[in-house]
Amino acid sequence: MKPLTTLPRADGFYMPAEWAPHTRTWMLWPERPDSWREGAVPAQTAFKAVISAIARFEPVTVGTSSSQFLRASEQLADLLNVQVIELSSDDVWMRDCGPTFVVDHQGGLAAVDWDFNAWGGQDGGLYPTWDIDSQVARKVAQLEGTPRYATPGFVLEGGAIHVDGEGTLITTAECLLHRNRNPQLSQSAIEGYLRDYLGVDTIIWLPEGMYNDETDGHVDNFCCFVRPAEVLLCWTDDESDPNYTRCRSALAVLGNSQDARGRRLAVHKIPIPAPRYAVLESEGGALGQVPDDNGRPERLAASYVNFLIVNGGIVVPGFVDPMDAVAMEILKELFPEREIVMVPGGEILLGGGNIHCITQQQPKPQRA
Amino acid sequence: MKPLTTLPRADGFYMPAEWAPHTRTWMLWPERPDSWREGAVPAQTAFKAVISAIARFEPVTVGTSSSQFLRASEQLADLLNVQVIELSSDDVWMRDCGPTFVVDHQGGLAAVDWDFNAWGGQDGGLYPTWDIDSQVARKVAQLEGTPRYATPGFVLEGGAIHVDGEGTLITTAECLLHRNRNPQLSQSAIEGYLRDYLGVDTIIWLPEGMYNDETDGHVDNFCCFVRPAEVLLCWTDDESDPNYTRCRSALAVLGNSQDARGRRLAVHKIPIPAPRYAVLESEGGALGQVPDDNGRPERLAASYVNFLIVNGGIVVPGFVDPMDAVAMEILKELFPEREIVMVPGGEILLGGGNIHCITQQQPKPQRA
Repeated sequence: MKPLTTLPRADGFYMPAEWAPHTRTWMLWPERPDSWREGAVPAQTAFKAVISAIARFEPVTVGTSSSQFLRASEQLADLLNVQVIELSSDDVWMRDCGPTFVVDHQGGLAAVDWDFNAWGGQDGGLYPTWDIDSQVARKVAQLEGTPRYATPGFVLEGGAIHVDGEGTLITTAECLLHRNRNPQLSQSAIEGYLRDYLGVDTIIWLPEGMYNDETDGHVDNFCCFVRPAEVLLCWTDDESDPNYTRCRSALAVLGNSQDARGRRLAVHKIPIPAPRYAVLESEGGALGQVPDDNGRPERLAASYVNFLIVNGGIVVPGFVDPMDAVAMEILKELFPEREIVMVPGGEILLGGGNIHCITQQQPKPQRA
Repeated sequence: MKPLTTLPRADGFYMPAEWAPHTRTWMLWPERPDSWREGAVPAQTAFKAVISAIARFEPVTVGTSSSQFLRASEQLADLLNVQVIELSSDDVWMRDCGPTFVVDHQGGLAAVDWDFNAWGGQDGGLYPTWDIDSQVARKVAQLEGTPRYATPGFVLEGGAIHVDGEGTLITTAECLLHRNRNPQLSQSAIEGYLRDYLGVDTIIWLPEGMYNDETDGHVDNFCCFVRPAEVLLCWTDDESDPNYTRCRSALAVLGNSQDARGRRLAVHKIPIPAPRYAVLESEGGALGQVPDDNGRPERLAASYVNFLIVNGGIVVPGFVDPMDAVAMEILKELFPEREIVMVPGGEILLGGGNIHCITQQQPKPQRA
């Protein structure tokens, strides 16, 4: 199927909120040795825990390379509600290389296939080639038989946006206005793409995301909607934490924003876990301090906001941290109608993201 | 999903006839340079013609390797009713490496995943490794979400059998009793597998298939059911053709056989096209004579029986041969309710098979 040449908004499509009902969640299977230590075996165990948690609530489709198909099939064979298929990629970040699904009010579903440049291309991107990732959205659309909109010339990752499904989108200037994404486009032109392809009206620009997030500050690791007119923001009161000013800048923007329907936003806060640092393989896999290029420890961008909302549940990363229990309580209060399931997130964090980054929900279209 | 540990027959499953309604046809995309000349470009053109012909009657799903996904998607983008997905294989023979679908009378569908050894393993097999082919049936089953029966220790290719859907199966001793398939099993034990996995009662053993068929005489290149109690058999009256005695031996068996319901078989004949020989790439791609290991020209096993029955149609290979028109007339008489579509088969024949070999129908389960 050829991509459509019209615009989703003009065709009646919009991106629903993550809490709208899902048909399934899409994921990819880890294997890349420069992203995942020890032959990706610990990562595969961590992914299995995430897959298993999501599959309690909705079907999960897991794409693997040809060479990992049998291994993934065997590892996941005991899970119900899980489909393993061949769908290769350059790594595992289905949120970012996969499609963004949009729906209309007539039960229609379509896929938006953004240009992808591995979080910055040759200017800070995270791997040297990304042509297999670039085909993932198209493959998913063809598997589902959904129409596909492509955006040649416009780079976006799914983790750079969050929507309320009622016309409002949150993103960060740190990522979307970075010179390594769409340097040829003005902020206004970028907003035009978001409006045309996601059916949104109001775009809220947080200045930055989490400190040292290698995605250049994806919003999905920092701030998300929990329902219309309510957002959840990472927070620290530790002035020595480089996130201290980031949190306050975001709060200032959110406090001065209205959503697409003219509502003020209620801002809930969730603590950031204690600083965590990248691991040295030579240290046997325990989390430890390793120096970055400047001799400083490499801070990892751990965040409880990197959860996925599924049908009836929330799947959130835990970090074996005193804040884990606090985060659980906050999520239980914010989502009283959902079951909160915490899954170990440390290994996935080492690879550069967390549960929201490795998943992409497929909304179930509703008829009005 | 784990394979089932029960037997299809005991679970109420049987293999329907090819003329029963299909949900879709599965195919694979050619690329292997030692099977297909000139970068497989002529083969891809030939496959597109087959895909296009089938897609007029029913949906076609085409599996490709990761590296060919974009090329196949672009080549086939103008075809309606065609889905291109990533599903890698060692070559293109979906009939043989793919699943055999079975149905029950309650609308159920299941896949039989036969052991596969590339038509003979290290004893005459057609490529040195076949581990990717061996995963194709499992991948198809997982894509469709169908239960899967595996047959560890029992080798079979889908092209080695034809059924009438009413309890009768035709095969050839040349293939199924070959020492390179199941040397540890007696004919009786092999019949047991066929009965248990395909729900058949009566097995008709033709002595041989077509001369020089590198599958060791697959029945699907030689003889098939056209409806219950009626078969179509390749035929030549040329005593110098090595198929002369093969045709007569088959006719003798068929003439003495009853089907599972006790009916005698009506045997229709269809001519074999004029002898065709393998091509030398140095000869520019035109079909020509090349010597085999003994200095004799390598005869190709061209056959009009290698057609596929689809919903409302027949897709049959043509060979730019005077017999093409004769074959068309015979098929029109045999299938008056179906449209007969002839597609160039020469390039596919060069690769070692034809339209039936590169396709696998997925029957649409019916409720009794």
